[in-house]
Amino acid sequence: MPAMTTRRTKSSRTQAARKSGTKKTRTAADARGRATKRVYYFGASKTEGRIDQKMLLGGKGANLADMTSIGLPVPPGFTITTETCAEYSRGGNRLPSGLMDEVRRNITLLERELGKKFGDRRNPLLVSVRSGAAVSMPGMMDTVLNLGLTDEVVAGLAATTGNPRFAYDAYRRLINMFGDVVMGVDHHHFEHAFNAIKSRYGVKEDTAVPEDGLKELCIAYQSVYRQHVGEPFPQDPLRQLEQAVQAVFRSWNGERAVAYRRINEIKGLVGTAVNVQAMAYGNMGEDSGTGVAFTRDPSTGENVFYGEFLVNAQGEDVVAGIRTPRPISEMEAWNATVWKQLLAVRKKLERHYRDMQDIEFTVERGRLFMLQTRTGKRNGVASVRTAVEMVRERLIDERTALKRIPAGDLVQLLLPCFSEQDKRGAEVLTRGIAASPGAASGTLAFSASEAVERTNAGESVLLIRRETSPEDVAGMHKAVGILTSTGGKTSHAAVVAVGWGKCCVVGAGDLSIDADAGTVTIHGRTFGRSDTLSIDGSTGEVIVGALPRTVPQSISGDFAQVMKWSQKYATMGVRANADTPADARRAREFGAIGIGLCRTEHMFFEADRIQAVRQMILSERLSDRETALARLLPFQRADFVGIFTAMEGLPVTVRLLDPPLHEFVPHEEAAQQSLADAAGVTLADVQRRVAQLHEANPMLGHRGCRLAVTYPEILVMQVRAIVEAAADCHADGVDARPEIMIPLVGTRRELAILRELTERTVTEVLAQRNLRKLQIPIGTMIEIPRAAVTADEIAEVAEFFSFGTNDLTQMTFGFSRDDIGSFMPAYLEKGIVEKDPFQSIDVHGVGSLVSMACAKGRAKRAKLKLGVCGEHGGDPASIRFFQKCGLDYVSCSPFRVPVARLSAAQAALG
Amino acid sequence: MPAMTTRRTKSSRTQAARKSGTKKTRTAADARGRATKRVYYFGASKTEGRIDQKMLLGGKGANLADMTSIGLPVPPGFTITTETCAEYSRGGNRLPSGLMDEVRRNITLLERELGKKFGDRRNPLLVSVRSGAAVSMPGMMDTVLNLGLTDEVVAGLAATTGNPRFAYDAYRRLINMFGDVVMGVDHHHFEHAFNAIKSRYGVKEDTAVPEDGLKELCIAYQSVYRQHVGEPFPQDPLRQLEQAVQAVFRSWNGERAVAYRRINEIKGLVGTAVNVQAMAYGNMGEDSGTGVAFTRDPSTGENVFYGEFLVNAQGEDVVAGIRTPRPISEMEAWNATVWKQLLAVRKKLERHYRDMQDIEFTVERGRLFMLQTRTGKRNGVASVRTAVEMVRERLIDERTALKRIPAGDLVQLLLPCFSEQDKRGAEVLTRGIAASPGAASGTLAFSASEAVERTNAGESVLLIRRETSPEDVAGMHKAVGILTSTGGKTSHAAVVAVGWGKCCVVGAGDLSIDADAGTVTIHGRTFGRSDTLSIDGSTGEVIVGALPRTVPQSISGDFAQVMKWSQKYATMGVRANADTPADARRAREFGAIGIGLCRTEHMFFEADRIQAVRQMILSERLSDRETALARLLPFQRADFVGIFTAMEGLPVTVRLLDPPLHEFVPHEEAAQQSLADAAGVTLADVQRRVAQLHEANPMLGHRGCRLAVTYPEILVMQVRAIVEAAADCHADGVDARPEIMIPLVGTRRELAILRELTERTVTEVLAQRNLRKLQIPIGTMIEIPRAAVTADEIAEVAEFFSFGTNDLTQMTFGFSRDDIGSFMPAYLEKGIVEKDPFQSIDVHGVGSLVSMACAKGRAKRAKLKLGVCGEHGGDPASIRFFQKCGLDYVSCSPFRVPVARLSAAQAALG
Repeated sequence: MPAMTTRRTKSSRTQAARKSGTKKTRTAADARGRATKRVYYFGASKTEGRIDQKMLLGGKGANLADMTSIGLPVPPGFTITTETCAEYSRGGNRLPSGLMDEVRRNITLLERELGKKFGDRRNPLLVSVRSGAAVSMPGMMDTVLNLGLTDEVVAGLAATTGNPRFAYDAYRRLINMFGDVVMGVDHHHFEHAFNAIKSRYGVKEDTAVPEDGLKELCIAYQSVYRQHVGEPFPQDPLRQLEQAVQAVFRSWNGERAVAYRRINEIKGLVGTAVNVQAMAYGNMGEDSGTGVAFTRDPSTGENVFYGEFLVNAQGEDVVAGIRTPRPISEMEAWNATVWKQLLAVRKKLERHYRDMQDIEFTVERGRLFMLQTRTGKRNGVASVRTAVEMVRERLIDERTALKRIPAGDLVQLLLPCFSEQDKRGAEVLTRGIAASPGAASGTLAFSASEAVERTNAGESVLLIRRETSPEDVAGMHKAVGILTSTGGKTSHAAVVAVGWGKCCVVGAGDLSIDADAGTVTIHGRTFGRSDTLSIDGSTGEVIVGALPRTVPQSISGDFAQVMKWSQKYATMGVRANADTPADARRAREFGAIGIGLCRTEHMFFEADRIQAVRQMILSERLSDRETALARLLPFQRADFVGIFTAMEGLPVTVRLLDPPLHEFVPHEEAAQQSLADAAGVTLADVQRRVAQLHEANPMLGHRGCRLAVTYPEILVMQVRAIVEAAADCHADGVDARPEIMIPLVGTRRELAILRELTERTVTEVLAQRNLRKLQIPIGTMIEIPRAAVTADEIAEVAEFFSFGTNDLTQMTFGFSRDDIGSFMPAYLEKGIVEKDPFQSIDVHGVGSLVSMACAKGRAKRAKLKLGVCGEHGGDPASIRFFQKCGLDYVSCSPFRVPVARLSAAQAALG
Repeated sequence: MPAMTTRRTKSSRTQAARKSGTKKTRTAADARGRATKRVYYFGASKTEGRIDQKMLLGGKGANLADMTSIGLPVPPGFTITTETCAEYSRGGNRLPSGLMDEVRRNITLLERELGKKFGDRRNPLLVSVRSGAAVSMPGMMDTVLNLGLTDEVVAGLAATTGNPRFAYDAYRRLINMFGDVVMGVDHHHFEHAFNAIKSRYGVKEDTAVPEDGLKELCIAYQSVYRQHVGEPFPQDPLRQLEQAVQAVFRSWNGERAVAYRRINEIKGLVGTAVNVQAMAYGNMGEDSGTGVAFTRDPSTGENVFYGEFLVNAQGEDVVAGIRTPRPISEMEAWNATVWKQLLAVRKKLERHYRDMQDIEFTVERGRLFMLQTRTGKRNGVASVRTAVEMVRERLIDERTALKRIPAGDLVQLLLPCFSEQDKRGAEVLTRGIAASPGAASGTLAFSASEAVERTNAGESVLLIRRETSPEDVAGMHKAVGILTSTGGKTSHAAVVAVGWGKCCVVGAGDLSIDADAGTVTIHGRTFGRSDTLSIDGSTGEVIVGALPRTVPQSISGDFAQVMKWSQKYATMGVRANADTPADARRAREFGAIGIGLCRTEHMFFEADRIQAVRQMILSERLSDRETALARLLPFQRADFVGIFTAMEGLPVTVRLLDPPLHEFVPHEEAAQQSLADAAGVTLADVQRRVAQLHEANPMLGHRGCRLAVTYPEILVMQVRAIVEAAADCHADGVDARPEIMIPLVGTRRELAILRELTERTVTEVLAQRNLRKLQIPIGTMIEIPRAAVTADEIAEVAEFFSFGTNDLTQMTFGFSRDDIGSFMPAYLEKGIVEKDPFQSIDVHGVGSLVSMACAKGRAKRAKLKLGVCGEHGGDPASIRFFQKCGLDYVSCSPFRVPVARLSAAQAALG
């Protein structure tokens, strides 16, 4: 798939650079062995380079050669090799002797092929000069366009084309670019001169300057050039070219490029190549034009040619949207020959690259030139349809189809969204972090309780909060969408919303919320309870008013086909994280083969339980705690019966209580007073206990299995509820398969002690219910670095591991996910972390702890079941890594299950 | 060192048990190979066991054999082997045939040796029966004393001794113990009978029951026994013995013992041994007695025999303190023969064990019996003196001397303390956590500013706070001691106090502090500003009133000798953590060879700087921050000049700013207002910024090098200050050797970017000062798990690693050191962690990350310098581990430097 090279990520590029280190010697030897060939031509007459010669021709040079060699009408040109650059440096920054002769010979080839002449007045050949190393690299020389224009040539060009505006505009651009990029004249000097002209003609826009002004501008620019360079702008096209080539070579050892290579550890490259390519102009008259097209419809995937073109225009005119382009289908009427050519190109491209292509083309005086082709971006729907249809068309096989669909885009097929069309013209107020995809419009509610009330009264409300906490869960559930001003993708709001498949935008820092007043101010505009806003959970946009939503598809048709293939090729199972029967049913519908994480604490917040939970926490005596727990037991048991029934025949991993107790106590005085009244204690008592529960770093505090160590009675109640629920199910003929998971384990003995208590409780209940045959595996989460490091010991007492990669990432990096907002943007920008490690697993650091734990655990217990239940369980890149670790399953939120299933297949396919 | 076995920690015991698993088979084979010998005698006539036969004879049995075989007059007896216990279990809980014959033969040997007879009325042999496995194990059978008494024997004994009280008291104890321990009669039944007798005689104390009462008690006990056992108390001594032996064997497979072995993973043991030993009584008349003694003075180390004895008394009388014992020197007058014997024993013991011994002895009718000997406990002063003098006496060599001194006890030689004598009679109010040794008495100050003011006014004040924060540092420094009601050994108060060698007690949970009122209430008693309290930083005691303090020694005499030897044998260097010239000088005095951690933030809190720091934090624009930083620069530079000068010629590792910025901003409104006034902003602005800086988990937040990534200007200012200070020093002929340490690094690129900025700044300043030759190594702390895991990459850009084991422990365990108070006690109690991992490194988990990082780092950079600067750098056990990792140095607070130096020597000696 050569075209894929253009879509490479930075990391794969770096890898390529590293690999290529070994090739370098060979290439250099080749070069020295033969008479040194320094220039490689590409064009209709011949194409000397190949796609596999990136080391010698640079990435761009090799690609131009490839496109040309499959017969695309690419503007011809030639590439000066990277070896030549090395020669230049070795020779004390001097062009190797003979190089310019070789360049001249290639210019001649170009002239012949195009029937133009370099420096000619009537029909001049103009070229672009671009740098291009084997690895894309900022800091190298920028492009110079229109090279070959001189005072004489421009006048001729103006006359020949009958378009002096075009000619002088091209010339002034050349002088500016050449001066700036090649000779290092500060750009603002040119700008200054341009401003003088504009004010003289009383215009504001560049485009409004008349022809005469442009001519004057060329003169003014030349004077700027002379003043700063110390010599006149070169009037010899070949001299221009020689200077440009030298500038490219010089830039290779420039400060910025050297620093970039050092920081990014780009080694083994000898230099940059130089690409010299004929210019093609779509703005040379009514027989010229330019356009962009997709070989299929990128929004639906339908197999139709899809695009637009503009007559007598440059590429940038299409993008700028000043003129309205015509649909590509109207091209036949304009120029049937070119149209036929273009259809042939379309076919050829899909046959060659075996994928949908996104192309740019220019027609210069009736002659078609392909400027670029790359794999076409498409949305999730189109991805699925294209892939499935291309299999039917025998263009690709099932494996290729699966590998090609960006797994993450599948959520677009399941959640409501605003279409691009409907969003056009919508007023976007600000953009937060797209935390949970989907789309929602609603009036504004500023507290969870308000959201519950107003929803119950029939309103669609958007819950707006600074941040959310477990106390807000009921209101979050009722709201159509959630919008917060702080937090990131793994903040409370985000995690809960993703689990529900509810639209959520977080960290919208521009929001200034006054919850008491019931207003939110965004960039000076204030919205109240009766105003409607919309949020787009896929883009993070916050929009004024309501927008129509596109209804989601269910899993059928092409989507179902993709899921079927996924099942065929995947070796890892996909479970879901679900806490309620409804979530469990949805997960099952989407193909989950079990629940990998059932969080019992979410059940604690329901109105009918929270009082008992709080009384339990307030109790100072064991017996009082046991009384409160006894009140909770029936609720928990009923919850489990519901989930086990929904997942009949499939495993359900129940995690015992995890969050610190302070998350369950009220922090507002009114709620504290009502708790005090209910518990028969004073407000001061409640406040004292709340203060006592406060922790400096709750993430590293009294939570997880640490609660079970200090309050074993909580564990006993929960285990009893699980086993009794399973027994009730079996009595009703429902095959319940609970697994008990103990969270936050750090040492073997911690788990050993709790496991013993769990086993004792299980045995006791099973004996009471006379149900001895039921096997309930007991395992642990691996989410503390120490647990990963000592996984061999822990495996001695665990039947399964489930990696809690959220917490493991927090502790391995020392990042609190609630607090990274202050530095993560800088970290991403500076490339300190390539991706937010809470979204995609940090393979090198956190990942190495995961793989270490897998290896150590399996060494001790060969049949140890391994899974993951952090946010990463639904992330395609992470799933690829988990496949390598040998995990048995990943577990993610129900709406990510299809994504994970496809990702698992992709991972298995390698 | 056989005696050492009795002092083993649980962990070494467990190890012994594991090792012994391999021996088991061999021993079993031995036993099967020969005619099975089941009983091993120890006594004057012969001693069949050896110290190395723990697997066969159990720990206690082997020790009794050892003491006997060196000629100590141990009450003779015999040991029934652990193999016999295994036979008993295999045979369906039946004693092997022939065993009781062998027992009888050994009883005959005993009778001959002691001239007493088992079951005899006039001169009966009485024995104790004790269990004893190779590993000490709770849950096994308790001791039975006085076995051999019957109705007949007791009457005879009463007559022969002329001491019926003694005889009947012994008998009632036997019936009780035998009933309870051997036959499982609940103890409270006996107690009930005893209470009936006591109330009949109208007495309250057991000892007040008259002779007749004791006789009645024996009858009553026998009736209790008969009632619950179903048969009369056995009147045949051999039957008693047989039943007791069976009970011991039975207890091996009892529920408690089995559970204990399972939980503690004690494997490879076949059973328990039974020790039958003649009783010896010191209360048989005026020719009998008992005493305890040390072979040298344990409080000074002086080579004098030191102890006490009581005539006609049992061991427990000495301990109970009812009668006043006589000094051991008066024994000669009482019984010159026994005195001479005892002196011979003293000499023999020191020759045999080559260490000071703590002995217990009994004289029964003029005959000396040694009941126990063990290594004598001693304080730091005595440790040092004994060790040095024993080398002079050629009892031990230098190596042994060094290995024997508990390194941690050396702090006692440097810090003031309350002597045990002075504390006698003192009123201890409560006990907190002993955080920083020393002793302090003072009136109470409830805020840092109050502590400063009142100290400046000439008072000695104790600072009492719930907890301390960096804002309190000035007051903490002024106070004579610090007392907090929350926090642990690594809380802010503790860490800062240890650094200064200032007395500190933390986590005194009984304190109820009302800072506004200026009172503290402890168990209902309230103390105010004018009251004086004392705290003992070595015990955690909080005491009413002032106590005299013992003045510290300097490093001279024997102490200096120990330090000299340490230097000779240690291979790791010892640096100090010091932030001020005074600390640096003290560290140097104590032998530090550099500063391993100079925390620049401590300098930020000084009154003349904090305003600039706060303005810097408030600034929203870079230029404002730079202005504020420019104001700070001269202060920082001057600080560094002071420290570099104090450490002339030695390396000083300066850590760049580490704590989160919110630690520097005021949290009280008044202070916020004054900051607002100074900065020319509103109170609301300040409060908004303070709120913005708030973090959910500051430990995992925006701190360390993350600050330098987002505010590079802070790094630049600090580096500039360091380099300018070094330049100033060199200009004055002072050889300054700074090293720059970047904290909290998690990824290679993070360090690479900051290193580049650091290097650029260093180069710039050196060029300005024309001082190009100065080499300033740049390194990082390894304190984030990810850094340890990816240490190979990080080593590419670091010249040294310094392990920040405090934070590394926090993140590896997921323990916030501020919050572990709620569960750490339970964790220690349940053995989930053996020691507080913040005090002594968790070798298995955190340690394995440290050793991994060392190996990975050195693999990439062979000359990578490795050190540690967490609290563990001053902990002997941790230092032993660091030696194994191959660290170049440890760094600790100045007062721990001697401890670390000795520990390093011990570690090197293995």
